[in-house]
Amino acid sequence: MPRVAVIIPAAGSSTRFGGPIKKPFLSLDGKPIWLRTLDLFAKRPETAKVYLVLHPEEIENFRLQYGALLMLAYDNIELVPGGAERFESVANALANVPEDVELVAVHDAVRCLTTASLITEVLQAAITHGAAMAAIPVADTLKRVEPTSNTITETVPRANLWQAQTPQVFERAALVEAYAQRAKLNIPITDDAQLLEALGQKVVVVPGSPLNFKITTPDDFRLAELLLQPPAPPPVKSRRPFDD
Amino acid sequence: MPRVAVIIPAAGSSTRFGGPIKKPFLSLDGKPIWLRTLDLFAKRPETAKVYLVLHPEEIENFRLQYGALLMLAYDNIELVPGGAERFESVANALANVPEDVELVAVHDAVRCLTTASLITEVLQAAITHGAAMAAIPVADTLKRVEPTSNTITETVPRANLWQAQTPQVFERAALVEAYAQRAKLNIPITDDAQLLEALGQKVVVVPGSPLNFKITTPDDFRLAELLLQPPAPPPVKSRRPFDD
Repeated sequence: MPRVAVIIPAAGSSTRFGGPIKKPFLSLDGKPIWLRTLDLFAKRPETAKVYLVLHPEEIENFRLQYGALLMLAYDNIELVPGGAERFESVANALANVPEDVELVAVHDAVRCLTTASLITEVLQAAITHGAAMAAIPVADTLKRVEPTSNTITETVPRANLWQAQTPQVFERAALVEAYAQRAKLNIPITDDAQLLEALGQKVVVVPGSPLNFKITTPDDFRLAELLLQPPAPPPVKSRRPFDD
Repeated sequence: MPRVAVIIPAAGSSTRFGGPIKKPFLSLDGKPIWLRTLDLFAKRPETAKVYLVLHPEEIENFRLQYGALLMLAYDNIELVPGGAERFESVANALANVPEDVELVAVHDAVRCLTTASLITEVLQAAITHGAAMAAIPVADTLKRVEPTSNTITETVPRANLWQAQTPQVFERAALVEAYAQRAKLNIPITDDAQLLEALGQKVVVVPGSPLNFKITTPDDFRLAELLLQPPAPPPVKSRRPFDD
């Protein structure tokens, strides 16, 4: 397996439902979400370094709170000050990735339930095809809605549509080149794969899972808590088809 | 509240992941999925009747297994033989709805986690606007994928896109008229709302929830099982930021 640099952007400013704590820093079953995400990658043998991108105004406090512990438990974590947009954050981290690293993986800080096998599959697809990302086929009918009246204007064919997830994995050199070209592309870019697509590069999708979701709403947080519970002991079987 | 007829299409032939039991008939935490869905509506005061649409070849066995119990526990359930397509199933049920019923709600048999408050909100929006449905804004970037190579061909703007859910609620007369016009519309129709949209009628979306999902994969089934567990007792609080 080639060496992989992992970029985890966590500099975004969205807090949980208006609360004081930003979502990646919420504690989920006793462990912060960002740390769960970091642990998906930090101990993998192919991981050269994990770049955790934080808001510049928060990086000092973060170091005070977690710096010593991170140094004790890991030897391959680098904190990077982020930018106002996700792309600046990825670009800042990318600038620190050494040239002897072959692949760069970008993963959402609030997507901490990703399985090790999905990460392996996306890495292997990136080795084969140059660029790959996790995604799931759209399962529901899609409606375009006029936002002021909430009225449906159109049913959008969902054939061959997939919902993007992460990880997204790229050859380092190709991602660096794409970021260098970014200013010339006069289109809004919502993820790193789109940058390569816009430059005509091949990006393949690897089937992810609905359980590989971003924690962005209270319902998501509750689901994540439930998924982290140990499985309940099997119930005593009984026939009770009409019980509640 | 006007009187409401509820149509639950459960005649589809998809089985669970190749197993012998069709998804609506799987037992979820001791109770069949179709019955959980039926119970969302059957006891509501505005519900005139629930039309449960079953595969014609299965209706006799279903009656043998559940008929007596359904008669004992409910007084407003009608079993309807369905068609090969969902639309035939809805049309068959719709033909049995009496004219003094003002609203018709259609709800997926495998969407059994819908909350009572969401059902109320969709009904009220249908009273106000004539037609309404539950839906959630698309949260992820969408990719169009070439299916033989799994290569991304396009990033699709997700602005103002919503994922359709159910219930979908319509004025009975408008839905009957839409079904009568259906043959003239030479387009593939994936849900009932689309039929009214195609005829230029207003349909509004009501924000649903990611927890109002269809049970279509093993992961969905597991999530539903978890959501039906009673909440765990609050854990003893301790500071263990680095525990697993």
